[in-house]
Amino acid sequence: MPLLHPFPDALPRTDAFTRVVLATLEPMLDGGRWPLRRSLGEPVDVVAGFVTDGHDRLRAELVADHPDGTQTVLPMPLRYNDEYVAAFVPAELGIHTFRVRAWIDTLGTWAEQFRRRLDGGETDALLEAEMTDLAQTLRRWAKPAPKRAAAPLVAYADRLDAGDRDAAFEPELAALADRFDPRTGLIVSDPQPVEVDPRLATFAAWYEFFPRSAADPGPDGRPQPGTLDDAARRLARVRELGFDIVYLPPISPIGVQYRKGKDGALVAEADEPGSPWAIGGFLNDGAKGGHTDVADELGGLPAFERFVAEADRLGLKVALDIAFQASPDHPWVDEHPDWFRHRPDGTIRYAENPPKKYQDVYPFDFESNDWPALWTALKGVFEAWIARGVRVFRVDNPHTKPFAFWAWCLAELKREHPDLIFLAEAFSRPRIMEALAKIGFSNSYTYFTWRLSKQDLTEYATELWHGDKAEFFRPNFWPNTPDIFHQTLADGGRPLHIARFVLAATLSPVYGIYGPPYEHPEQTRKHATKEEYADNEKFEIRTWNWRDPSSLQPLMRRVNEVRRAEAALQQGRNLRFLDIANDNVIAYVKQDGASRVLVVVNLNPFGDAGGMLHFDPASVGLDAYAPFVAHDTLSGETYRWQGTEHVVHLTPGRPAHLFVLRQG
Amino acid sequence: MPLLHPFPDALPRTDAFTRVVLATLEPMLDGGRWPLRRSLGEPVDVVAGFVTDGHDRLRAELVADHPDGTQTVLPMPLRYNDEYVAAFVPAELGIHTFRVRAWIDTLGTWAEQFRRRLDGGETDALLEAEMTDLAQTLRRWAKPAPKRAAAPLVAYADRLDAGDRDAAFEPELAALADRFDPRTGLIVSDPQPVEVDPRLATFAAWYEFFPRSAADPGPDGRPQPGTLDDAARRLARVRELGFDIVYLPPISPIGVQYRKGKDGALVAEADEPGSPWAIGGFLNDGAKGGHTDVADELGGLPAFERFVAEADRLGLKVALDIAFQASPDHPWVDEHPDWFRHRPDGTIRYAENPPKKYQDVYPFDFESNDWPALWTALKGVFEAWIARGVRVFRVDNPHTKPFAFWAWCLAELKREHPDLIFLAEAFSRPRIMEALAKIGFSNSYTYFTWRLSKQDLTEYATELWHGDKAEFFRPNFWPNTPDIFHQTLADGGRPLHIARFVLAATLSPVYGIYGPPYEHPEQTRKHATKEEYADNEKFEIRTWNWRDPSSLQPLMRRVNEVRRAEAALQQGRNLRFLDIANDNVIAYVKQDGASRVLVVVNLNPFGDAGGMLHFDPASVGLDAYAPFVAHDTLSGETYRWQGTEHVVHLTPGRPAHLFVLRQG
Repeated sequence: MPLLHPFPDALPRTDAFTRVVLATLEPMLDGGRWPLRRSLGEPVDVVAGFVTDGHDRLRAELVADHPDGTQTVLPMPLRYNDEYVAAFVPAELGIHTFRVRAWIDTLGTWAEQFRRRLDGGETDALLEAEMTDLAQTLRRWAKPAPKRAAAPLVAYADRLDAGDRDAAFEPELAALADRFDPRTGLIVSDPQPVEVDPRLATFAAWYEFFPRSAADPGPDGRPQPGTLDDAARRLARVRELGFDIVYLPPISPIGVQYRKGKDGALVAEADEPGSPWAIGGFLNDGAKGGHTDVADELGGLPAFERFVAEADRLGLKVALDIAFQASPDHPWVDEHPDWFRHRPDGTIRYAENPPKKYQDVYPFDFESNDWPALWTALKGVFEAWIARGVRVFRVDNPHTKPFAFWAWCLAELKREHPDLIFLAEAFSRPRIMEALAKIGFSNSYTYFTWRLSKQDLTEYATELWHGDKAEFFRPNFWPNTPDIFHQTLADGGRPLHIARFVLAATLSPVYGIYGPPYEHPEQTRKHATKEEYADNEKFEIRTWNWRDPSSLQPLMRRVNEVRRAEAALQQGRNLRFLDIANDNVIAYVKQDGASRVLVVVNLNPFGDAGGMLHFDPASVGLDAYAPFVAHDTLSGETYRWQGTEHVVHLTPGRPAHLFVLRQG
Repeated sequence: MPLLHPFPDALPRTDAFTRVVLATLEPMLDGGRWPLRRSLGEPVDVVAGFVTDGHDRLRAELVADHPDGTQTVLPMPLRYNDEYVAAFVPAELGIHTFRVRAWIDTLGTWAEQFRRRLDGGETDALLEAEMTDLAQTLRRWAKPAPKRAAAPLVAYADRLDAGDRDAAFEPELAALADRFDPRTGLIVSDPQPVEVDPRLATFAAWYEFFPRSAADPGPDGRPQPGTLDDAARRLARVRELGFDIVYLPPISPIGVQYRKGKDGALVAEADEPGSPWAIGGFLNDGAKGGHTDVADELGGLPAFERFVAEADRLGLKVALDIAFQASPDHPWVDEHPDWFRHRPDGTIRYAENPPKKYQDVYPFDFESNDWPALWTALKGVFEAWIARGVRVFRVDNPHTKPFAFWAWCLAELKREHPDLIFLAEAFSRPRIMEALAKIGFSNSYTYFTWRLSKQDLTEYATELWHGDKAEFFRPNFWPNTPDIFHQTLADGGRPLHIARFVLAATLSPVYGIYGPPYEHPEQTRKHATKEEYADNEKFEIRTWNWRDPSSLQPLMRRVNEVRRAEAALQQGRNLRFLDIANDNVIAYVKQDGASRVLVVVNLNPFGDAGGMLHFDPASVGLDAYAPFVAHDTLSGETYRWQGTEHVVHLTPGRPAHLFVLRQG
């Protein structure tokens, strides 16, 4: 902020030294070094603390510069405590900036004091002297302007000199002052950037599945390898369930050398498909394919293009998984050996976290002597998929690549394509995840999966949506992923799957599931030793029942319907936890205008739980003394409630209420 | 903070792009634009959040640059959550700056991974390859250095190449790495300034009195005009009562034109002394005197010099009141009419806040065309008093002069005299008071006088000492001033005078009183309509009983003794409020090592109050299960307490406990 320099070593050099001080400015991220994040239509509420010496009045303005070169200038009225406020609503994607500015309100100060002199019964002589004083000021303002333009100002000066007291208070004079006051001592803040993303960055439901598991089973009931065409046939159902973004693990050719077998076995059988994250393998024509190729067994690039077309037709966005690492068969291993790190004997270093070794994965050497070419090639990977219609990317382990790379790469890509969305898959320490969010990732995976108790969930959600973090960190809540299947969720079966789904989808406006196994809690097992699924699709092809009324599919469809219908569920900062005296039951309310949603979830999958819920209807704008209706969108039941104490009771068979509230 | 640029428009230009990110830095004020405030010996605890990609270890350092040109470099060990910590204790007055820096710990990362390879039972071939790798790194480090200097490093490379595994873990190699590692990717924070003031800026008791009221009464008992020599005779007593700073209202000649009479009457009688804040009047030789002169009726400059000498002898600091305004008789009115604002008829504008007029006061026009000369002259006022031995200034209404003036003036003065202390008398809005503190004022008057209830006191003290404000805003608590005598204090008489004195002196390490009337609650009256004293010394000469055992003098002496003896009372941030279920009783504890002070005050001057105090002795390091002693330094009584619940009872006759605690 352009506050006064702390250690001036000479008299201020301009004639007009600064009389106005910018004391505070919100919102702001690290002094303006990182952009605040908004999505289209989300307002930027700006509060600037300006002060000056003495009793002078200030005028303040908010100036917003938009990506298309247009500018919005808004007056900032004084609220209280020296705070001047205004808000603008970005209507365009990309980087907007705003500044605040203030100056001494010469006319307003004069008019206020003159009014008090009049009210105080001041002598005519003194009043006339003051009017002469103002007239002189107006003539000084008029001087540098073209005569014709300044004529109305001079006319006011003449009227004041002629003793016309009303002249000073006419709105036209205030308008002229707006134009002609030279704004001596104007102070302007540094520009504060605001990155405006598509709506899907702040409100979206993600659905992940493996395209190779999308085929129908064979006649023997065993899984058949699926292609992207099989996957495309599943999209209508994904849309029907109410999801917005369909996310595919990597679809590039998979390496053969050191290919992993079932359950991550170090040696794969000949017919095993390998892990999609081992990027770079052979194509049907014997050539090697890398990050921008599509595996032939998935149908190749043409099948992918058909997949995107079908998604477009349904209004679904396709999210691709970008994993910046290479299998030993990746074409760049031969073409650009410099892009990898080597041991003294000249062999390429595979990934390791001693004593663990990952011989199937070569990390890139971001500090290689040839790094500008490597970085440009990696950016090119995104560009290739963008050219094929992809706008959403899930980035694998971004925290093992330099922050400087991402800051550069994401900014470059967004400059051309401000509609891109990047989800950072960094299950790392808080400051690392925050740094990634600041440098450009639109969404972040979170610790939600491990926040199980009422207290942990409450504290974590409060940190995410009620702290400074909400200005840049946008959580994407996932109850499961191919890598993460929590013991508690496995043990908690269907009741806890329902509870955690409702939590993810209503606590966070952006959430996702690794769909097929989540839909069928009864058909999934946890790995014996790892916190992930057994028979893991990372290493083998599975088959799923894509239409199963006894699965969680109906629940998912219902919850996503309510999310779309209720504006209250489309944001995070309106979350407010409610008191209910039971450690196993969590309750919260969200409101946006007439949209009011109250959620109650039983965190104990093994027993009933209930209690007295304290909820004041007046806190969401309902009549405090009249009955109101709580419609449970999950069960279809409707309750008539009144007052602030309400009995709730949940069972393993019905672990959650998703109430929509309205005046009864 | 030098975080990565948000919108890079090209590949980073250096070969060594930044891999380390500075995520957080504390303490910091407005991004380093304003100095943090400390006093001599007060530590600066620095916490830097550094992160990097991947699994590499970091090294971090704190670099402090001192005013004398010396530098302290301290290692910052990792604490937790990516926070690296270190502290330095400034031992010199003036502006220190500190920076934090971090880089990839190449050797440490290697050694950690090598240890894990060893522990994991890695093959000899791979271990040897890693050792060769490190040896190559060491030889690369050695290359640019003089051969002889680098010889030990090369010797380690030879040992590693020869297969000596222990070599990698020797502390001498770590020390060599410290010297030779080129610290690729080093990141350094912006410098953060810390202004170090004398101890009296953070721990002091101020005593204000009017020198002209310091004479003994005449034979008829009526006040006699006192001089600075009379005032000097009172200093020994002020010191005896335990005060550190004696503060005098302005001592310059007082104007005659528009001189105010008793109770601020617009016309003074011929023999009335006028208000000392009407700066600038006639000297005995008929000349006019201004801001740097001493009124003849106070004994002139020689008497002031004797006063300062006596204060010096007693170890008291003299604080002068600097009021930047002029009476119509001020010499600058004739010499520099340009320094004042004028009406169109050429007359000088007096001060006003319409409809109120202050014809006895001309404000300076800080925006005058001749402002550089005015600003320099005003700075000269301080310089003249500094040359006469004054180091402490109480500045009258600084918020009615431009912030830019103060930022420049105070910085200039402190550059030459870093031992100066400035108290801002701005009873204004919060952000204005904060701005003055940021731009250089060492202490600030506060709202303490109007914070009367337990809740208000608790909230206000918490805001002052437990928020960000504590980094720059240093409160000076005054229960009364010549301008402020709160109705509640007037009504509450002696009991409330005791209570408010104990609160001011124990809540705040810096406090002050307008002494004579405070010592004699029974002899003072509140003005009928204004929130100030009747028979106000601002406008008339009074006489006081300077040695009165029945006054509050013994209490003041006792409290100041305890403040000096107990380190716990010499700081603010250690304040912790305690639970006691009585809205009229406030209780808090402060600890510094073995110094533990517990204060309980009855805020109701009209009745008894008590209750069960919840205080856990373990919270201040006393044995939770053994008895401890609470010695009331005010009554001399000693209690033996045990456990966490303690009965306290206070009466109007004994409105406060000032307990010193020790193990029983």
